[in-house]
Amino acid sequence: MSIRIAVIGAGVMGADHARIVAEDLPGAQLQVVCDRDAARARSVAEALGAVDTATDPEAVIARADVDAVIVASPDVTHAPLSLAALRAGKPVMCEKPLSQSAEECLEVMQAEQESGARRIMIGFMRRYDQSYVEMTRALRDGTLGRALMMHNFHRNVETPNAEFTGAMAITNSAPHEFDVARHVLGTEYRSIWAAQPQRSDDRVAPVVMMLETTDDQLVTIEVNNNAAYGYDVRAELVGEAGSVSMNNVVHTRLDAALSSATRYDSDWRGRYAEAYRRQNRDFLRFVQTGAFPATAADCWDGYCAALVAETGVRALETGQRMPVEMIARPAFYDRDGGASG
Amino acid sequence: MSIRIAVIGAGVMGADHARIVAEDLPGAQLQVVCDRDAARARSVAEALGAVDTATDPEAVIARADVDAVIVASPDVTHAPLSLAALRAGKPVMCEKPLSQSAEECLEVMQAEQESGARRIMIGFMRRYDQSYVEMTRALRDGTLGRALMMHNFHRNVETPNAEFTGAMAITNSAPHEFDVARHVLGTEYRSIWAAQPQRSDDRVAPVVMMLETTDDQLVTIEVNNNAAYGYDVRAELVGEAGSVSMNNVVHTRLDAALSSATRYDSDWRGRYAEAYRRQNRDFLRFVQTGAFPATAADCWDGYCAALVAETGVRALETGQRMPVEMIARPAFYDRDGGASG
Amino acid sequence: MSIRIAVIGAGVMGADHARIVAEDLPGAQLQVVCDRDAARARSVAEALGAVDTATDPEAVIARADVDAVIVASPDVTHAPLSLAALRAGKPVMCEKPLSQSAEECLEVMQAEQESGARRIMIGFMRRYDQSYVEMTRALRDGTLGRALMMHNFHRNVETPNAEFTGAMAITNSAPHEFDVARHVLGTEYRSIWAAQPQRSDDRVAPVVMMLETTDDQLVTIEVNNNAAYGYDVRAELVGEAGSVSMNNVVHTRLDAALSSATRYDSDWRGRYAEAYRRQNRDFLRFVQTGAFPATAADCWDGYCAALVAETGVRALETGQRMPVEMIARPAFYDRDGGASG
Amino acid sequence: MSIRIAVIGAGVMGADHARIVAEDLPGAQLQVVCDRDAARARSVAEALGAVDTATDPEAVIARADVDAVIVASPDVTHAPLSLAALRAGKPVMCEKPLSQSAEECLEVMQAEQESGARRIMIGFMRRYDQSYVEMTRALRDGTLGRALMMHNFHRNVETPNAEFTGAMAITNSAPHEFDVARHVLGTEYRSIWAAQPQRSDDRVAPVVMMLETTDDQLVTIEVNNNAAYGYDVRAELVGEAGSVSMNNVVHTRLDAALSSATRYDSDWRGRYAEAYRRQNRDFLRFVQTGAFPATAADCWDGYCAALVAETGVRALETGQRMPVEMIARPAFYDRDGGASG
Ligand SMILES: [Mg+2]
Ligand SMILES: [Mg+2]
Ligand SMILES: [Mg+2]
Ligand SMILES: [Mg+2]
Repeated sequence: MSIRIAVIGAGVMGADHARIVAEDLPGAQLQVVCDRDAARARSVAEALGAVDTATDPEAVIARADVDAVIVASPDVTHAPLSLAALRAGKPVMCEKPLSQSAEECLEVMQAEQESGARRIMIGFMRRYDQSYVEMTRALRDGTLGRALMMHNFHRNVETPNAEFTGAMAITNSAPHEFDVARHVLGTEYRSIWAAQPQRSDDRVAPVVMMLETTDDQLVTIEVNNNAAYGYDVRAELVGEAGSVSMNNVVHTRLDAALSSATRYDSDWRGRYAEAYRRQNRDFLRFVQTGAFPATAADCWDGYCAALVAETGVRALETGQRMPVEMIARPAFYDRDGGASG
Repeated sequence: MSIRIAVIGAGVMGADHARIVAEDLPGAQLQVVCDRDAARARSVAEALGAVDTATDPEAVIARADVDAVIVASPDVTHAPLSLAALRAGKPVMCEKPLSQSAEECLEVMQAEQESGARRIMIGFMRRYDQSYVEMTRALRDGTLGRALMMHNFHRNVETPNAEFTGAMAITNSAPHEFDVARHVLGTEYRSIWAAQPQRSDDRVAPVVMMLETTDDQLVTIEVNNNAAYGYDVRAELVGEAGSVSMNNVVHTRLDAALSSATRYDSDWRGRYAEAYRRQNRDFLRFVQTGAFPATAADCWDGYCAALVAETGVRALETGQRMPVEMIARPAFYDRDGGASG
Repeated sequence: MSIRIAVIGAGVMGADHARIVAEDLPGAQLQVVCDRDAARARSVAEALGAVDTATDPEAVIARADVDAVIVASPDVTHAPLSLAALRAGKPVMCEKPLSQSAEECLEVMQAEQESGARRIMIGFMRRYDQSYVEMTRALRDGTLGRALMMHNFHRNVETPNAEFTGAMAITNSAPHEFDVARHVLGTEYRSIWAAQPQRSDDRVAPVVMMLETTDDQLVTIEVNNNAAYGYDVRAELVGEAGSVSMNNVVHTRLDAALSSATRYDSDWRGRYAEAYRRQNRDFLRFVQTGAFPATAADCWDGYCAALVAETGVRALETGQRMPVEMIARPAFYDRDGGASG
Repeated sequence: MSIRIAVIGAGVMGADHARIVAEDLPGAQLQVVCDRDAARARSVAEALGAVDTATDPEAVIARADVDAVIVASPDVTHAPLSLAALRAGKPVMCEKPLSQSAEECLEVMQAEQESGARRIMIGFMRRYDQSYVEMTRALRDGTLGRALMMHNFHRNVETPNAEFTGAMAITNSAPHEFDVARHVLGTEYRSIWAAQPQRSDDRVAPVVMMLETTDDQLVTIEVNNNAAYGYDVRAELVGEAGSVSMNNVVHTRLDAALSSATRYDSDWRGRYAEAYRRQNRDFLRFVQTGAFPATAADCWDGYCAALVAETGVRALETGQRMPVEMIARPAFYDRDGGASG
């Protein structure tokens, strides 16, 4: 039997998830597309042949003909709808962030633990990107020796939002980096520093962060939301014996006008299309088997990302290195020698 | 309703096609896996949840619960089974080559024309590879100016077959290059030259070919079946204004031991996984709509590949440039301004 | 008439300078090779056809048949011998550092100002490296827009010295990075942070630094003295409109054993051979014309490098961001719109 | 004592040679700059501090204050002036080609043999280029196994000469490729094929050649005098165990406007500056020691290049593979296990 999936949110992310369910997830059926904006829900549903549309997410989550839920509605709804899925006893893949508030993440964790079983995956899809998979492998198989540093660069062409601030770069853009570096290194953060250069205009300047891990490694992160030249994510994992760097994956090179050039994308969708597909296939297997995927992020990961982001904002404000003060990880979230264990 | 697909042949290629149908083709159902070796058919069918298995391909093609056929059995069966599909009035995707005999290709073309409709796609999946798509686009959109040359390199790690000859390199390996260069350039061949260097052992040496097109372009092709260092396909399309080259697509780079290195695959499957998926999705759309895909190869393309290969073998034997003597293309095989038109 | 140059110090650096003077500096003559170890001086002098050898550097500097001096003896001798050259009224190219003590640098600056003319060049040869020249040009010609960040990575295969510390990485290795980033950006430093990860052995771990400039830019520097995989210097200059990155300059690529690889050097000499040649040719022109070269480092640059290194050591010790507290630049050291002005 | 060198010809090539002698050849003195155009000779001589200028090359070659000669005057003068140098008993570095006529090359060879000593170096400077040096090394040290093929691409931005023909591409541009492939492989040519695509304008189209060597290897050469996009020389040496490819040597990469780009030069001078320097230093050593350099090209090499070019022109005219019919190499031109021996 096909797994009947409801997608909550029919914006850019929700429409992408719905398309993957409809076209790239044999064994799954796009049961409901739900959006507060009924017309938007209908538009996505019709294009993809969804069974039904709806406007009330909590009602959708409770429906008998819905086996599992993907939450891709606005960030503030992520935690409440994840809680609704817990109440309905249904597996949910919640887009990142679980919440921007570490406190609210703890509440969801509490509810999940009380529910007695893992039900919530967080959409940190970078973990499924082939580049990070190869990095992680080179670390696990001993090629690199002990990991010492990870350098991360996240660059967007521009931030259309005129109100976007350095604090928002840390809370909205950096969590992907916070999570994937934790995941690759298999560790937690101990402290974070942050600084910004000054731009000549009023757009948000890059934020550069330096983090220490509990295993005494260093992680540097640059988030540059107005890099102008292209969408570009880079990472390098430096070990005692060698280093693995991410390539910009391109298929052709153009020689013209005294230049040899490859292209950058203007946004993130092409870059991570395969990672989203892999992540959602892993979610489907989770729904089918009940076994939480070794690679997927869970609520603990969501909490860690939110907490380090909150701490990073204070570091940027104070200009001081700030300690990341985490609770102890509940045994409920232990992995058996998994990638981030 | 799902399209019910039978896959004929459960060897490496057939198993791959069956896997794509089962896992990557929403809207299709893996109905039958057929192989002369019943155990092999069962093994593939069970792993992928096929509905049925069989050992008689002609009977499978005629079955009422089979809507379309993928032929991936040994090369000599390709033309006969394509003819069987024509008789059954069913669309077929036939792995390359349609036949190694241009004469036999003409017979299939004759039958297809008499059947009154296009039913046969040939599995020249390179046309769907992103690198060639980008090359073709740079040519069509004027970036390159008039195309002058295309340089092609096909390298395998090794040829296990001790009996493999230069002639076989031309008939078995080069057709992918013959087809994709014709497709990118949108032209036919006029002549072919071929030569081989001498190896120090008894393995087959590379074959280097130079072809002239009917539009007065040059195509060079190196087929090196024992290149040792890796599976590596390269191509460069040179125009009057610039040039587009294929990249080796890799996700990471390893710095270790005084070297900065990327990896080659040891075989072709990773390299063309996405091209096969795209091709088979195009086949599914063809089955659903009846409209022959603009990108796909047809029997005319199969005939051209076989004829230039036959001519290339004579060129290698004689050491002389040999004219490629084609029939005129039947109007039946015209494309409406399509990529190879 | 040829300029007669004395090279003080016949170790690795001194022998390299002597070779450049003898073989790559038409218009210069290798007059004296001076080393406390007479045999070492003779060995270098004979191989290169020097006119004379000596063991007393101050006497050599005073000789009437010596027009100019290159100081490449141990670091502690740099300032005293530069002062000796000032007393002799002779131009000197002093290997970096002028001194590891900012205080001692100020003393040399004082003496040079009192001498009434610029006589001292500091051997920060990176400024002459083609990569940094191209970066600087892209910034000056407006290609990059306002500079926001510069990321710098300095990696050696290994540090043979078992006593080498993180503080020494800052005082001995990082000054090249401190200087060249100041030079490219045309600015000074305001603050520095520093941290180290933990290695699994007792070798010195990398030091990662983050510096703010007085123009509100960020400079990150990683100095990894035991990077294992190769000698590797990287830099990226990030502006508001784009970014320029340094390439690892290599002439060939080897495809073998499922790998496509370029080589790293095992030390710095090949990497900067051309920069040393350019620098020493600039020194020769300085001697010939009396005009201090626009690109060359002077005592002010030597002071800045020493001061930021001293501050960086305290930042590493305290774990705090430390202000770089510079004196105001004496007008004597002004440049006329030069590269670092 | 300095070697006093006369440079014959003060055009682009001659001026470059004169500059190298004046600025990059310690031990040499730029004695005479000679050109039929006295003003041009004076202009170059003054810029570089030459001792004297002249307009009569034969008289210059005979002067007592000239120890050695570099011939960089028009191609038709190369053989006559080389003969004049033989008569004067002086070593000469003659720019390529020795002559475009194989017959005239044989006459010079005859005269050189009768003179009893090697005196003539031919300016095939590619042999000194680091890329080819590394290729040759990878072949000689066994890394590549037996050499099977060498692929060569020579591309210029444009040919200003409206009368330039495919035959001229073979006789004027291809000889560098003919020579360096022979040199790297250490072999001679047995046959040559040639063809041209058709351009849309009246500029000379690329010429593609395929050559067989006497060791049963294949050499492909593309000469594209109107490649538009940049000056670009590529080569790949393919052996049984691996392959070495030439890199485009660049120092920086620019990320801007959705593109990551490196630059091509617009002409050959930057690309081969170091090769010319190395070659001329080797010539100086030859003058000083009398020992013919292992790497340098001699009259035999000049003859081979001329003969294969003449044969290539006939191959292009006839469309047939043409045998390269060489004389046996005179023992006078044997090398002792040298690179092309
Ligand atoms: Mg996500
Ligand atoms: Mg195929
Ligand atoms: Mg230095
Ligand atoms: Mg030359």
